[in-house]
Amino acid sequence: MKQSIQHVEAAYFQVPLSQPLSDAKHGVHTHFELITATVTLEDGTTGTGYTYTGGVGGKAIYHMIESDLKPHLLGQDATIVESIWDDMNWRVHYVARGGIASFAISAVDIALWDIRTKKAGLPLWKYLGGKEGKAKAYYGGIDLGFSLDELLDSIQKELDYGHTAFKIKLGQKTLAEDIARVKAVRELIGPEKTFMVDANYSWTVDQAIRAVSELEQYDIYWLEEPIIPDDYLGYAKIADKSRVGIAMGENLHTIYEHRYAMEIGKVSFIQPDASNIGGITGWMKVAAMAEGYNVPVCTHGMQELHVSLLAAIPHGSYLEVHSFPIDQYTLRPLVLEKGNAIAPDTPGIGVTFNWEKLEPYKLAL
Amino acid sequence: MKQSIQHVEAAYFQVPLSQPLSDAKHGVHTHFELITATVTLEDGTTGTGYTYTGGVGGKAIYHMIESDLKPHLLGQDATIVESIWDDMNWRVHYVARGGIASFAISAVDIALWDIRTKKAGLPLWKYLGGKEGKAKAYYGGIDLGFSLDELLDSIQKELDYGHTAFKIKLGQKTLAEDIARVKAVRELIGPEKTFMVDANYSWTVDQAIRAVSELEQYDIYWLEEPIIPDDYLGYAKIADKSRVGIAMGENLHTIYEHRYAMEIGKVSFIQPDASNIGGITGWMKVAAMAEGYNVPVCTHGMQELHVSLLAAIPHGSYLEVHSFPIDQYTLRPLVLEKGNAIAPDTPGIGVTFNWEKLEPYKLAL
Repeated sequence: MKQSIQHVEAAYFQVPLSQPLSDAKHGVHTHFELITATVTLEDGTTGTGYTYTGGVGGKAIYHMIESDLKPHLLGQDATIVESIWDDMNWRVHYVARGGIASFAISAVDIALWDIRTKKAGLPLWKYLGGKEGKAKAYYGGIDLGFSLDELLDSIQKELDYGHTAFKIKLGQKTLAEDIARVKAVRELIGPEKTFMVDANYSWTVDQAIRAVSELEQYDIYWLEEPIIPDDYLGYAKIADKSRVGIAMGENLHTIYEHRYAMEIGKVSFIQPDASNIGGITGWMKVAAMAEGYNVPVCTHGMQELHVSLLAAIPHGSYLEVHSFPIDQYTLRPLVLEKGNAIAPDTPGIGVTFNWEKLEPYKLAL
Repeated sequence: MKQSIQHVEAAYFQVPLSQPLSDAKHGVHTHFELITATVTLEDGTTGTGYTYTGGVGGKAIYHMIESDLKPHLLGQDATIVESIWDDMNWRVHYVARGGIASFAISAVDIALWDIRTKKAGLPLWKYLGGKEGKAKAYYGGIDLGFSLDELLDSIQKELDYGHTAFKIKLGQKTLAEDIARVKAVRELIGPEKTFMVDANYSWTVDQAIRAVSELEQYDIYWLEEPIIPDDYLGYAKIADKSRVGIAMGENLHTIYEHRYAMEIGKVSFIQPDASNIGGITGWMKVAAMAEGYNVPVCTHGMQELHVSLLAAIPHGSYLEVHSFPIDQYTLRPLVLEKGNAIAPDTPGIGVTFNWEKLEPYKLAL
């Protein structure tokens, strides 16, 4: 039976962060933008999806949902999510192939998956065929601006919290400073814990090659985004010389870009983000491709949703527990247990916003 | 002396087309969106840049200029256009690397070039070092929906107008229909005229290979976008088997994508569009790269501006005279002379809008 879409409504929020966060290339974050899309069917069923940014572009995303996607969605059959995804992509194609459009489509697509899984009476990870409902998790700090003491304090806090894997930002003025921080963190967490680093493309190819040769001795699980995401051939040059696995994906906004990261860039880990790769549909396409490339799948941000996606696939690696606390504005913040994140077990995507808590940060556009 | 930016103002217009136009993948166009950005310096100098779409995404572009770029631009020194370009790209990077951001940055960048060239007292093409101030031009029809008679009528009209080169759309239900149209147009224009075709990525790689083998006999100057722009390796497969040159670029929104089209995709012609590659700064970067790849540069749409860019470079090929008549809303519509387009000879970018004529199509956002 056709499940006709009767209503689509976007909303825009500017949510402050408890402390300013910085990385090598995106400057200082003082808040994040949250853009939600709520889809209502004729029978009254609703689903809510969302995307977010580090503080820029959210209004354009909101307006693309309202002006360009919504008119196309009304009256469509919400059951055929993948076809709607395809239609949305073609509808905005000339101004898309990534960028704002990928974020806007993500929010709508996630709302449609919320409806689909509610209708099926299954939690997302089970709907997608997952077995255990959990995923390994790591703490991802946005800590480039922290002093060494602040950095170690922040890691100690997460150790105490129960995390068993940690990622820090690199990209200090000199490689020596970066390596000193890596050494100190490795000493703090001990040899057993998992340790990743993220340069947010602050290096050249040659700087990255020099960095991995020094990073090796600290048993680094992956080096994330050593160079700009566009330079797949540069990634390959680094991967060819590195014994530390290279990771990327949070800045890749089309399935084709993910393909090139694996096929040409030779990455060891791929990190699609459902908030900017076209939602759950886009994320699952990348995951399927990654299985073919024999590349483990990790995630970026949005842990409250991604836990259900990693829990669904056979080649999932680590879930990032990101410093943008979207889950603090939902009815079920992320649940961690002995280094694993536990996927929500209720029908739907498992992310229900606490609208009352969000209300103070809502802007009428 | 620092030339401080005091004001930035975007405007949004929905301009109707005189007849509905269609291609293989973007559906029917009934109007185009024009988004202008006017930059004013403290000394009162103004410059106006612009971008456009086929009807979708314009509001998101407007809001990105107003919400995300403008606050960053105010107070900056307008003389250092390339650094501002770089800053704009980094500012929106997380939601960019193409898409809406490339369009928004284009409009602002073109405004800054308008100011720069006005201040220098030179027309754009001369500022950039061009010698002759003209470029070969071709008529680019958006005629997939035309009957064969309508198609031939439209080409005859452009022949009468003085055009010496013509492009038609391909992507009919069968290749036989496409070839019949190609044959009829070649017969109409005679063997001397230049003739291009554009499939707007309606084909698979194999369909494209079959198509070029049939197109060859009609002396086709280039085949444009046989397949989706993302599939550079697919482009290479076609190029490897084709004696008709392959062209692409209008859907590539970063300089890196243009690099891959040439390096991996083996295109014979590259077609950057200043309205979606980051304005004049982005376009010139692609042109410089193309010179290194020994690939001639063509353009897409926006002929009233692109004429000055093609006239400026040593490896310029054909200017597209597009069916979206932006130039009809400027004080100097495109000037054609014996198959050449003549670049404006006044200081600035040479595109001054007729705001009065545009006024009825302005929407307050």
